[in-house]
Amino acid sequence: MLRWLTAGESHGPALVAILEGLPAGVRVTSDDIAEALRRRRLGHGRGARMKFEQDKVTIVGGIRHGRTQGGPVAIEVANTEWPKWETVMSADPVDPDELAAQARNAPLSRPRPGHADLAGMQKYGFDDARPILERASARETAARVAIGEVAKAFLNQVAGAHVLSHVVALGEIGVPDGVVPGPDDLERIDADPVRCADPETSAAMVAHIEELRKAGDTLGGVVEVLAYGLPPGLGSHVHWDRRLDARLAGALMGIQAIKGVEVGDGFTTARRPGSRAHDEIENTPEGIRRRTGRAGGIEGGMTTGDPVRVRAAMKPISTVPRALDTVDVTTGEPAKAINQRSDVTAVPAAGVVAEAMVALVLAEAMVEKFGGDSVEETARNLQGYLSSLVIK
Amino acid sequence: MLRWLTAGESHGPALVAILEGLPAGVRVTSDDIAEALRRRRLGHGRGARMKFEQDKVTIVGGIRHGRTQGGPVAIEVANTEWPKWETVMSADPVDPDELAAQARNAPLSRPRPGHADLAGMQKYGFDDARPILERASARETAARVAIGEVAKAFLNQVAGAHVLSHVVALGEIGVPDGVVPGPDDLERIDADPVRCADPETSAAMVAHIEELRKAGDTLGGVVEVLAYGLPPGLGSHVHWDRRLDARLAGALMGIQAIKGVEVGDGFTTARRPGSRAHDEIENTPEGIRRRTGRAGGIEGGMTTGDPVRVRAAMKPISTVPRALDTVDVTTGEPAKAINQRSDVTAVPAAGVVAEAMVALVLAEAMVEKFGGDSVEETARNLQGYLSSLVIK
Amino acid sequence: MLRWLTAGESHGPALVAILEGLPAGVRVTSDDIAEALRRRRLGHGRGARMKFEQDKVTIVGGIRHGRTQGGPVAIEVANTEWPKWETVMSADPVDPDELAAQARNAPLSRPRPGHADLAGMQKYGFDDARPILERASARETAARVAIGEVAKAFLNQVAGAHVLSHVVALGEIGVPDGVVPGPDDLERIDADPVRCADPETSAAMVAHIEELRKAGDTLGGVVEVLAYGLPPGLGSHVHWDRRLDARLAGALMGIQAIKGVEVGDGFTTARRPGSRAHDEIENTPEGIRRRTGRAGGIEGGMTTGDPVRVRAAMKPISTVPRALDTVDVTTGEPAKAINQRSDVTAVPAAGVVAEAMVALVLAEAMVEKFGGDSVEETARNLQGYLSSLVIK
Amino acid sequence: MLRWLTAGESHGPALVAILEGLPAGVRVTSDDIAEALRRRRLGHGRGARMKFEQDKVTIVGGIRHGRTQGGPVAIEVANTEWPKWETVMSADPVDPDELAAQARNAPLSRPRPGHADLAGMQKYGFDDARPILERASARETAARVAIGEVAKAFLNQVAGAHVLSHVVALGEIGVPDGVVPGPDDLERIDADPVRCADPETSAAMVAHIEELRKAGDTLGGVVEVLAYGLPPGLGSHVHWDRRLDARLAGALMGIQAIKGVEVGDGFTTARRPGSRAHDEIENTPEGIRRRTGRAGGIEGGMTTGDPVRVRAAMKPISTVPRALDTVDVTTGEPAKAINQRSDVTAVPAAGVVAEAMVALVLAEAMVEKFGGDSVEETARNLQGYLSSLVIK
Repeated sequence: MLRWLTAGESHGPALVAILEGLPAGVRVTSDDIAEALRRRRLGHGRGARMKFEQDKVTIVGGIRHGRTQGGPVAIEVANTEWPKWETVMSADPVDPDELAAQARNAPLSRPRPGHADLAGMQKYGFDDARPILERASARETAARVAIGEVAKAFLNQVAGAHVLSHVVALGEIGVPDGVVPGPDDLERIDADPVRCADPETSAAMVAHIEELRKAGDTLGGVVEVLAYGLPPGLGSHVHWDRRLDARLAGALMGIQAIKGVEVGDGFTTARRPGSRAHDEIENTPEGIRRRTGRAGGIEGGMTTGDPVRVRAAMKPISTVPRALDTVDVTTGEPAKAINQRSDVTAVPAAGVVAEAMVALVLAEAMVEKFGGDSVEETARNLQGYLSSLVIK
Repeated sequence: MLRWLTAGESHGPALVAILEGLPAGVRVTSDDIAEALRRRRLGHGRGARMKFEQDKVTIVGGIRHGRTQGGPVAIEVANTEWPKWETVMSADPVDPDELAAQARNAPLSRPRPGHADLAGMQKYGFDDARPILERASARETAARVAIGEVAKAFLNQVAGAHVLSHVVALGEIGVPDGVVPGPDDLERIDADPVRCADPETSAAMVAHIEELRKAGDTLGGVVEVLAYGLPPGLGSHVHWDRRLDARLAGALMGIQAIKGVEVGDGFTTARRPGSRAHDEIENTPEGIRRRTGRAGGIEGGMTTGDPVRVRAAMKPISTVPRALDTVDVTTGEPAKAINQRSDVTAVPAAGVVAEAMVALVLAEAMVEKFGGDSVEETARNLQGYLSSLVIK
Repeated sequence: MLRWLTAGESHGPALVAILEGLPAGVRVTSDDIAEALRRRRLGHGRGARMKFEQDKVTIVGGIRHGRTQGGPVAIEVANTEWPKWETVMSADPVDPDELAAQARNAPLSRPRPGHADLAGMQKYGFDDARPILERASARETAARVAIGEVAKAFLNQVAGAHVLSHVVALGEIGVPDGVVPGPDDLERIDADPVRCADPETSAAMVAHIEELRKAGDTLGGVVEVLAYGLPPGLGSHVHWDRRLDARLAGALMGIQAIKGVEVGDGFTTARRPGSRAHDEIENTPEGIRRRTGRAGGIEGGMTTGDPVRVRAAMKPISTVPRALDTVDVTTGEPAKAINQRSDVTAVPAAGVVAEAMVALVLAEAMVEKFGGDSVEETARNLQGYLSSLVIK
Repeated sequence: MLRWLTAGESHGPALVAILEGLPAGVRVTSDDIAEALRRRRLGHGRGARMKFEQDKVTIVGGIRHGRTQGGPVAIEVANTEWPKWETVMSADPVDPDELAAQARNAPLSRPRPGHADLAGMQKYGFDDARPILERASARETAARVAIGEVAKAFLNQVAGAHVLSHVVALGEIGVPDGVVPGPDDLERIDADPVRCADPETSAAMVAHIEELRKAGDTLGGVVEVLAYGLPPGLGSHVHWDRRLDARLAGALMGIQAIKGVEVGDGFTTARRPGSRAHDEIENTPEGIRRRTGRAGGIEGGMTTGDPVRVRAAMKPISTVPRALDTVDVTTGEPAKAINQRSDVTAVPAAGVVAEAMVALVLAEAMVEKFGGDSVEETARNLQGYLSSLVIK
């Protein structure tokens, strides 16, 4: 069983994540995690904040001399803007006069459409959106990316597996069918301004971003995550919540702003006739294999041994420069939603967050199937399984 | 915390489900559950099995004189075909000679594409698909529908909530935009041959089924589940796995043959510009309300108080009459996948299963937010919340 | 992850348990489970009910031809007294006149001290103890014993492990220090009238029971569970809820009427000086070993490889023939607690229930550490670990 | 659902804990938490380390201006000794030459009896005890005490509840029967050198500590935790793992060095006849009440409304000055276990840790029964329940 919790607010001193249940011996360093966080800030279409955000990483526990020790891994991602916020976001009570002097502390009484603001204020009983948006903010995904990197290291060191992502659609513009990058393409994708694997589409996407930026509007899109090198049999058909596709869908939909999830060809599969919707099986010199990858490498809720392929649809950024209509809840009067942000789209970065969530789910499934308290032990159990497969 | 487990095989004596954590005092009877199971067998395009399947319901525990008692609810759905299978599926060892005489007991060595067969055989170490397909079969959803009905009764009696579903696409044929049925439409939908809310589309769908039946092919589609009458604030933005959309996505993707999930406008939202993708907020005589329902009634992972709207994409039935290619794993020779089934599509019934999963997730979220050990107590807590809302 | 739920009422049609997460290939039959249930009815000091209770076992799912199949195992234990109760305990509503005619249906308004009655009525909002006592009854432990037997079979077939119990104290009478039976003693213990491993103490215990029976009183006691053949390293020190002792303590305290739990020498250890409280380590021809077993085979929340030894203290049966004082909650008047039972003690049987709970926790820890989806796979992983131990 | 994870090593930069699921509006400050940590260092019989340990508290998330915000609460307890350890315990790889120069970095190859060392090295595959003892150390309980303080604040602000502890036995010396302190006694207990509520017994305990200190030995003992002000009906009889006693037993046994747990009179109850073991019920001017508190305020796994009373037995400190026998695992030669510590007993402090674990379990049970996302909402639900009790 792998468990993880994240904590921290967008403008608090730091985000922190604890990842519990990972075997000992996983090699990972602060630099690896800092690099993962750097990837999370990628992408044309981001505003100023991404540029000055310098995610300062501290490994607080669970790793010694570059290796996990078996206990919970704790990672802190400090907020370099904290000095500006330490009064407004102080954990301890602050002199009311001092607070009153801070413009930043003014209650946010105009809940923004598309955000957690209004429902969160109702649920938790606040007439100020601050307590809601501080936690609902996508900044929290930095904590997930940090521990996701540890999960990726585990998957790679135990099974030689690789998890990567690319942008398959930005607004109306999508990549052509058949663009399925492999592990070697990741560097190239990260170098692309929108993390798109197809250069021609990428150029169109960049142009589209610029167009929307001028129009004072924002863009959503679709990211695809691919996982290579997994054995057959992760997840299970025996109970709904053991199905790997169910767990991946929950993990992806649990990312801020995601509104749709597909496994393999997903909604397209629902439109095809059965004779062209499945992956026929054949014998090859390498063993019994599926001819196609329509199912996204998951059948019956289990990995098939083929690459896992899942997609997440992200809605456009909700803080639209051409501000949306809302109500000031203190007066009941119509108002414009506050907009302090200048990003056009966060889709390229969403792929990196999606990778982290997929890696965490896969690491959990790996630990569940193969057990083990050290990388050596888990890897030995995996090898024993592969060399004993009843069908190869 | 609401927990549930199901057990049982497709051709075993019975399916059984236990639902633990529901308050006392929910009114529900065997007839209610039998009626829910009858709805699960609805739909043009089903083959012979659905007709003779008579799901015999027994409430084994947790309900007395028509009301839940606070303890776990256990429901058994007996298999009326059991006498034909009691040797082949016997729990206890059977005389090998007697078994050998049963054609039904022959090992299934030709794993079917699109099914759990091959990955399951590898995972669990079987060279016979029987142990896999018996549990992976969609027959298991009868157990979910049974306890889903109890969850629905709870939601209705505590909050006046209603959960319903309709078919929004069958293969290439979809309903026009804006078809969003309400609770009063459910009877009409159930009476429709494909559980479609739009009569014109329904006729086209039925024709499409007949066309595919003649072609020896099968069909998938998309179902939409709607939940009315929920308070704002179910689920939460504070942690990914508390988000209601994440939990709904996991529950829906955990249904056999589902490959995609959307909340609200889902993938369509990802194509829209931000200025037309969100639900603007306005003050109305009834209180502060959203103008549109694009988000599907969920923002920041919480219900907004508007109807919840989610979709699931089902792949076409995998046992295609024009049999798919596979391999006989005992010989390594090419083979055709066995096909003993004559359904063209199970999409109309999938909506009923999806309702059950949505109802279970919503009941869990309701218990989580409002606590309570009796319907009276949970309802009182809900009313106290609604009448104290900081923003109405 | 191993999960289990039980359901059913004491006088309902049946109890049912679902055990989810066990590997495929565990050999177990209805007869094995019936035999385990027979052991649960053992013990001098039981009243009439135990004699006529004939726990009829049906394996509803998860086992085929004597082997688990990887899916959830469901076992039903039917109540042979059901015909007498089918109106009073009917799941569906019953004609009020018919009910009124049933003496058994009269509300139980005098909550019994020492039982769940009063707190349960308050929690769930009933003015009748029936809904509470039906579920709180120790009859429910039959469901745990049924699945506990499956867990034992798994432990034995994967690791050669054995779980057994004996009575170490009955009221004031305890076995001498140093009575620690091994697996070969189980048959003898079961044949003993009070499941005591020391014949002399047993005779004194039987006499004590008779004495108390004459006095119209009841007896508690202490049972000890021993588990042999476990590898080192089940459970973990890394988080409190991974500690095996924490999990065993929860499981044992979760048995009806248990009020105390010890690991190894427990409370006695708390009285010893540190120089005589621990198990010193030495090198032996068989490897590095501990000299004593004071810690009960668990250090730092992990098995050490020595026998696991835990104890549970059971309070005397609460329905005392010399009835206890209570209040009739409908009138507020003093009353005597109803007493329809004639057992003096249930301690001998409690050992069998405690074995089941220990076996379930150990099976869970085994699956967690070694993974595996078949007995072969889990056993292979265990062997690989044992032959690679850094310290032997 | 309330969840919590802790992370961090004894000599690492900090411990950190995340507590997820607590309602918004709980008032708590860094000073409150620092004060709780100061109480954890109390007690005659502690060695030098406790004196110079200055637990520096930082609230990293979840609390703003002295109130919880609904999101996860994260608390860091920094290790003021960190500068001495930053090379040896560095998360990132360190120059091997630099490491070799550090005496502190020498592998610990002589596992200490009574510690996690040996089993942990075997489980996680280390030939050095450092990675095990760093996490197994009781220093980790500081993280639990930190979040336990938040749980206590919640219980107090929602229900007016109080959780306190006292030492009831130190080695052979126990308090007389009937010493049951109330909330007002806590200050006095904390001022006592061994946190004993009975001054005479306290003096004998202190003398006993001095005696053992001279003998180069250590002491265990028993602590009792009391919780006042809880409503009836926390926990439940309906499933073993919902029983409050089961959850308390798991939580207490999950504390380092605890080997026994009792609820109410525990093992003593097992020795009494049934006629004197239970709490008879009577009507009083304040309502229907129990005459005695033998059951420890828990019947059928539920609070009765009377004070909850549980005990935990702690073994003597395992690092005995008169060092215990062990083996050097690198040579296989006999050796003496390392002993760098000079505490005689940690029992007084264990009570403070036990309070934290009890508070966390009770807070979880409170959230489960009453739901609510703010202190106001949970308190309103509790009041609604109390004023509607079917039996008062």
